Amino acid sequence: MKPLAISLGDPAGIGPEIIVESWARRIEGLPPFAVVANAQVLRDAAHAKGLDVAVKPIADFSETLSVFSDAIPVLGELRGDYHPGAPDPLGAQMAYDALRIATNIALSDPGVGVVTAPVAKAQLADVGFAFPGQTEFLADACAISPEHAVMMLAGPQLRTIPLTVHCALSEVPSRITKGLIVERATIAANALQRDFGIAQPHIAVCGLNPHAGEDGRMGDEEIREIRPAIEALQTAGINASGPHPADAIYAPHKRGSYDAVLAMYHDQALAPMKALDFDQGVNVTLGLPIVRTSPDHGTAFDIAGKGIANASSMIAAIRMASEMAARRAVTP
Amino acid sequence: MKPLAISLGDPAGIGPEIIVESWARRIEGLPPFAVVANAQVLRDAAHAKGLDVAVKPIADFSETLSVFSDAIPVLGELRGDYHPGAPDPLGAQMAYDALRIATNIALSDPGVGVVTAPVAKAQLADVGFAFPGQTEFLADACAISPEHAVMMLAGPQLRTIPLTVHCALSEVPSRITKGLIVERATIAANALQRDFGIAQPHIAVCGLNPHAGEDGRMGDEEIREIRPAIEALQTAGINASGPHPADAIYAPHKRGSYDAVLAMYHDQALAPMKALDFDQGVNVTLGLPIVRTSPDHGTAFDIAGKGIANASSMIAAIRMASEMAARRAVTP
Repeated sequence: MKPLAISLGDPAGIGPEIIVESWARRIEGLPPFAVVANAQVLRDAAHAKGLDVAVKPIADFSETLSVFSDAIPVLGELRGDYHPGAPDPLGAQMAYDALRIATNIALSDPGVGVVTAPVAKAQLADVGFAFPGQTEFLADACAISPEHAVMMLAGPQLRTIPLTVHCALSEVPSRITKGLIVERATIAANALQRDFGIAQPHIAVCGLNPHAGEDGRMGDEEIREIRPAIEALQTAGINASGPHPADAIYAPHKRGSYDAVLAMYHDQALAPMKALDFDQGVNVTLGLPIVRTSPDHGTAFDIAGKGIANASSMIAAIRMASEMAARRAVTP
Repeated sequence: MKPLAISLGDPAGIGPEIIVESWARRIEGLPPFAVVANAQVLRDAAHAKGLDVAVKPIADFSETLSVFSDAIPVLGELRGDYHPGAPDPLGAQMAYDALRIATNIALSDPGVGVVTAPVAKAQLADVGFAFPGQTEFLADACAISPEHAVMMLAGPQLRTIPLTVHCALSEVPSRITKGLIVERATIAANALQRDFGIAQPHIAVCGLNPHAGEDGRMGDEEIREIRPAIEALQTAGINASGPHPADAIYAPHKRGSYDAVLAMYHDQALAPMKALDFDQGVNVTLGLPIVRTSPDHGTAFDIAGKGIANASSMIAAIRMASEMAARRAVTP
């Protein structure tokens, strides 16, 4: 098993503290990782959290395994300091550089998965980061279209994929097309097979409207786009079902009947997901040539440095990336 | 404590069987009720379910208490038979008449709460029922505007109120107005006070867009309508907060911090609700001069008569109506 590369994220956010806490809990069975960062930032974060954590700079990623059991292996001596709750351009630059270096490690060795700690979009834009988010940066670095990098939220009870993500709700209906549904569901089915070891993944597709439109009585997107997309997927041999009413598909007795929900928009996917799996949700990017996960939360500047950030999602992201990378190593 | 009046709902749906099961489980502490129906339908439903249940016709609602411990008191000899899974016009007429009679009992004695079992809209329309649903019928019977009858879903973990209900998602953004939010939140706050005994109810108002719009970066309804509505509510002395991102407000650590969520549309309210409280959700109509609850599911013709329908939501609806009516009896 290869170690993972973790990018620090914004040093003013909760990234440093949830990373040091993850390492401190490595005896719970955490796979080994190196952090692309700056050793002092992690030392300061551990100190602020009251954790007795050793940090050891490494010159090359290949040293990770020999260091990990005794200290956090840290790659890179990126400039910047630990000022929790007070983001600055130097920290944003550090987050950007850490992301780039971690991605390059995985690109040069596809057996290495990447876990990205949270960044702040507004701060990153100020240092010339020209992408809406880390996912789009990764798609670009992997030379694939951002349309083909598909976000999935995965937790112990549920996996959900929002078809549309960060756009106004009023723009959602016009973005729901047969083509987009077929494309995303196909990427998702392939990724669930390759990275999650599910032989014939069942994708449950949500309707857009209440009760999935009730045969056109409340909106016709189900009839015009969603139903034809499901039929096309089935013809292509993909186990897709629906359109399902969003208020039925997440019910406890339904959750065992599919492998992932393809929801039509952000809140339809994320509101039930975070109601059920808040602390342990992982953000996974499907469709990339490399493995990438991240915790399902932001920088949380308001609580950074207060010792109250919960590392569960980061730990789940580390575990999931390692499992995905291990599956790719067997069947690349 | 006064008994409740339960309307049978469509006799071809799961209404009869969940009513007889509720009565069979009365020793779990269920408040007394009479069913407006036809005694034979309930006898047949009990027989089909293999339950040893006595059914006794009563001539007047006032006989309920003296009968309830030994038999299901049944008011009315409405025409129609028990044909589970096979709805017909006679059954729809029975459902309509049962609803009307139960409502009239409550209107003549406001201490009596009404619980309505599920009806089928399409069947009801065929027998001249000129309302979109039972809630609109009740508003009309109570001589109030249907706009002032507010649907709330209440479960053990969550109460949610959809601002807009049965309309296409594409129509939702234009329906989100400051006026509607203020009106519905005020009705909700008053009802939570009067019927649920919450002295100063906290209403958490959702945003419409992902992340509640991120200060206008994804949609401006929060800035134009939702924020001003929350300010107006606060000025009026109502404890309203938000706009909250829908993927944050339902998280476990948030759920204890408010009394109800005012969501902007159907699935934003119901998808998280049914993910968490599927079997025990109750549909409550706020703002009526009478108390009305119903189970949070439909007729389920597909499973009617098979003995697998779950009575939990009906039992929760009966308990909730009784508690609400008892509170009104103290402070009418």
